[in-house]
Amino acid sequence: MMKFQGDHILSVSQFDREAISRILAISAQMTPYAMRQKRCLVLEGAILNNLFFEPSTRTRVSFGTAFNLLGGFVRETVGQENTSLSKGESLFDTAQVISGYSDVIAMRHPKMHSVEEFSKGSSVPVINGGDGANEHPTQALLDLFTIQSEMSPFNKGIDNLHITLMGDLKHGRTVHSLSKLLSLYNNVKITMISPKALQMPDNVVSALSNAGHEVIITDEMAGNLACDIIYQTRIQQERFASKDEADLYRGHFSLNKEAYKQYCKEYTVIMHPLPRDSRPEANELDTDLNDLDNLAIFRQAQNGVLVRMALFALTLGVEDKLQQHEKPITWHTNKNK
Amino acid sequence: MMKFQGDHILSVSQFDREAISRILAISAQMTPYAMRQKRCLVLEGAILNNLFFEPSTRTRVSFGTAFNLLGGFVRETVGQENTSLSKGESLFDTAQVISGYSDVIAMRHPKMHSVEEFSKGSSVPVINGGDGANEHPTQALLDLFTIQSEMSPFNKGIDNLHITLMGDLKHGRTVHSLSKLLSLYNNVKITMISPKALQMPDNVVSALSNAGHEVIITDEMAGNLACDIIYQTRIQQERFASKDEADLYRGHFSLNKEAYKQYCKEYTVIMHPLPRDSRPEANELDTDLNDLDNLAIFRQAQNGVLVRMALFALTLGVEDKLQQHEKPITWHTNKNK
Amino acid sequence: MMKFQGDHILSVSQFDREAISRILAISAQMTPYAMRQKRCLVLEGAILNNLFFEPSTRTRVSFGTAFNLLGGFVRETVGQENTSLSKGESLFDTAQVISGYSDVIAMRHPKMHSVEEFSKGSSVPVINGGDGANEHPTQALLDLFTIQSEMSPFNKGIDNLHITLMGDLKHGRTVHSLSKLLSLYNNVKITMISPKALQMPDNVVSALSNAGHEVIITDEMAGNLACDIIYQTRIQQERFASKDEADLYRGHFSLNKEAYKQYCKEYTVIMHPLPRDSRPEANELDTDLNDLDNLAIFRQAQNGVLVRMALFALTLGVEDKLQQHEKPITWHTNKNK
Repeated sequence: MMKFQGDHILSVSQFDREAISRILAISAQMTPYAMRQKRCLVLEGAILNNLFFEPSTRTRVSFGTAFNLLGGFVRETVGQENTSLSKGESLFDTAQVISGYSDVIAMRHPKMHSVEEFSKGSSVPVINGGDGANEHPTQALLDLFTIQSEMSPFNKGIDNLHITLMGDLKHGRTVHSLSKLLSLYNNVKITMISPKALQMPDNVVSALSNAGHEVIITDEMAGNLACDIIYQTRIQQERFASKDEADLYRGHFSLNKEAYKQYCKEYTVIMHPLPRDSRPEANELDTDLNDLDNLAIFRQAQNGVLVRMALFALTLGVEDKLQQHEKPITWHTNKNK
Repeated sequence: MMKFQGDHILSVSQFDREAISRILAISAQMTPYAMRQKRCLVLEGAILNNLFFEPSTRTRVSFGTAFNLLGGFVRETVGQENTSLSKGESLFDTAQVISGYSDVIAMRHPKMHSVEEFSKGSSVPVINGGDGANEHPTQALLDLFTIQSEMSPFNKGIDNLHITLMGDLKHGRTVHSLSKLLSLYNNVKITMISPKALQMPDNVVSALSNAGHEVIITDEMAGNLACDIIYQTRIQQERFASKDEADLYRGHFSLNKEAYKQYCKEYTVIMHPLPRDSRPEANELDTDLNDLDNLAIFRQAQNGVLVRMALFALTLGVEDKLQQHEKPITWHTNKNK
Repeated sequence: MMKFQGDHILSVSQFDREAISRILAISAQMTPYAMRQKRCLVLEGAILNNLFFEPSTRTRVSFGTAFNLLGGFVRETVGQENTSLSKGESLFDTAQVISGYSDVIAMRHPKMHSVEEFSKGSSVPVINGGDGANEHPTQALLDLFTIQSEMSPFNKGIDNLHITLMGDLKHGRTVHSLSKLLSLYNNVKITMISPKALQMPDNVVSALSNAGHEVIITDEMAGNLACDIIYQTRIQQERFASKDEADLYRGHFSLNKEAYKQYCKEYTVIMHPLPRDSRPEANELDTDLNDLDNLAIFRQAQNGVLVRMALFALTLGVEDKLQQHEKPITWHTNKNK
């Protein structure tokens, strides 16, 4: 059995298929704790330093929650507060100091490869929570976990699936990382729907092709949604030269219930890394889809907690001790229903 | 016995007198934990998400402390960090995601009715920590709790009291909400002292009159302070067009020990929602009152913790299990003296 | 045995040599918890309010970590959020309220003597985490602890040492406070190396002389490093009129391995309060020193956790109960190797 203890989690490229399977299996074991059927205190007294040098409510809270759900304490740093860096301190030095205050570190930083640089100075495992345009491995893992768990009722795995990626495929970090992971699986058919100017980068496409996958590239939604999974994305306005330029592409692939019924299979599952842009000019996933069981976007967000719990458990070497540290839930909750 | 478990706490209007009594009774049971005579771990392992989209040190820390005092973990978000909203995400979506990371949520937001809108997407109880000019129900509850506990040594309840509200009654959210709650009681006499331009809104006055209460409206402090409770407030400068306009009204009703001795009863209790403006031009409550036993303003602030503990216990359905989860205090403290 | 329980920790001036010895002795007892050989839950359920009205990642996280390592909860306030102060609230009032939400408070504030003023309104112990140019007592204590622990393998104490202070001795708050503490010891030789314009203030020098210490003042590094301890500091650019003025002095006393081998003793220990400025124009301590065992700068930073744990234990009166509340570590860690 492969071990992760003491490892940094920096990139999806560091995993082979066996490693991914292990992470997803441990993630699934976290479900009863996140669903509040019982509690787990395996990391009671351990300290996570949650370093978000670039703000992100969703990812930051998800990491912190995941650690609390295993019983640990969370110390947190948000935003441009880290004046030491502006006083000329290297990331290596910052890592030496903060890792001395931590049992594990989750870190987001606006600069590409900064988390890897930081990890070299750290005496404890560092988990990459996003380093600019580079990597966001926990998002890719939670996406893969979601695909697996949503397909499971249909007795499908990840091999042989048909997945449609849609929207701003040029700038979307999540679809790039997910594609890297899909290269580890067999015979996946991937339809890529985007405006011509926002097509998936060539290197991502060729990696999928080299893995033996069928890739279809189109700028038409109609007729191209009869798949197992639709992965919708947001126009990443912050990566465009101007709002006006982003406006050129917004709203091209709005999906609503009518389009879903017309183009999708009965069981097609809808995913989205969130936030979804619900303003009328974008309306990536219409709110009329909210009552559709196959809309998996909120389950997908919750799965982020499971995957992050799994990574904490694995890097701290407690993945086999979860049951020994279980306790009952003492309060009222609707989650486990 | 009425139950609150699973409920959102959005407005004082959702409570009848029985509900209020229940909240105040549970609040009183929290005293030994807050006073450090013993600890309570009834919410050990539970997670509060403390979402302060509008900053507020006092209220935010009070909610977080209340949850820690019951043994729970606190995840926190402060300020305009929530960029997802600026990316077009609806409050409903934000609530779906964050509630998946929480057992209960406390939320402050600058926009009126935003907390209610948010609560519709939440799978866990949401407690309103203030939504703009609209509501701040926990402040009103702690005010009422303070009135009750301060009057108790004089064998008085809330019925039949004489309460004086003073200052900026037009903009003060706390006096509006407190007045709503007082409408549930009998035969309260309410004196309202304010500059003519800052009088209590008509709808608040008529609601009190309709409840059978006597309301006296005046712009004179002299001769109008012989009451049970004085509730002093701050000129809410941030609601005026300019500092100059606010300056017109500042310092009109400064209360100091001399005025207290001249106009008040021997036992008149002084309250204030804090912060009190102690700059010379305002000096709402002179510091020469600090050694007066009847100055209840700091006890009032502490009572906020008791009321918030009670609301957490009630919405999470553990109000009857407190004693089962008690533990002794292991450290030195002066609080329980 | 002297007691600290209930005391505020505001200044190094409040300690005599016996008090310092006690703090350092308790700090040493914290090592197994910080090194993760075992855990200590002596402050389980206690609440630290970590009030950083001036941001500081390193010191803030260190205080929070120290409290978590003893089992306690941490509530945190960062930056200029404290709008109550801007609404005219006195530090006394803020302290009355926040101390009601706390078992102990750590506070940093940009204004000199503000923490002392605050402490007068607090019902719980307040630990000064830095009040502007005035004091930063926990830094001075951790520096002294580091000197003691680094010299211990050589069977040296603090008496009779030769310590070299280097860099911006005019503005460096840490070298001022450390000098105050050194005045309590015997026969210390202190070499002060700085540009002429950035010499140690006269009052600090004369306090050391009055304590019977030998003080050597120079602006030459060559020939003046054959000592027990080198305490290097950063040019405090934020205290100069302009970056240009600070640039005049940057890089004058860069220490690298070549200079170390040429001028230092074989066992000379290098300290630095961090952050070290590693930009080429400053390069206070070259990274080629990183593999030198005698480079103590990161151990020094970790020692901050030990000292802060000790101060929490002492002010809360639990320093004799640590062993009763020990538990094993359940997760994988490299720290205790």
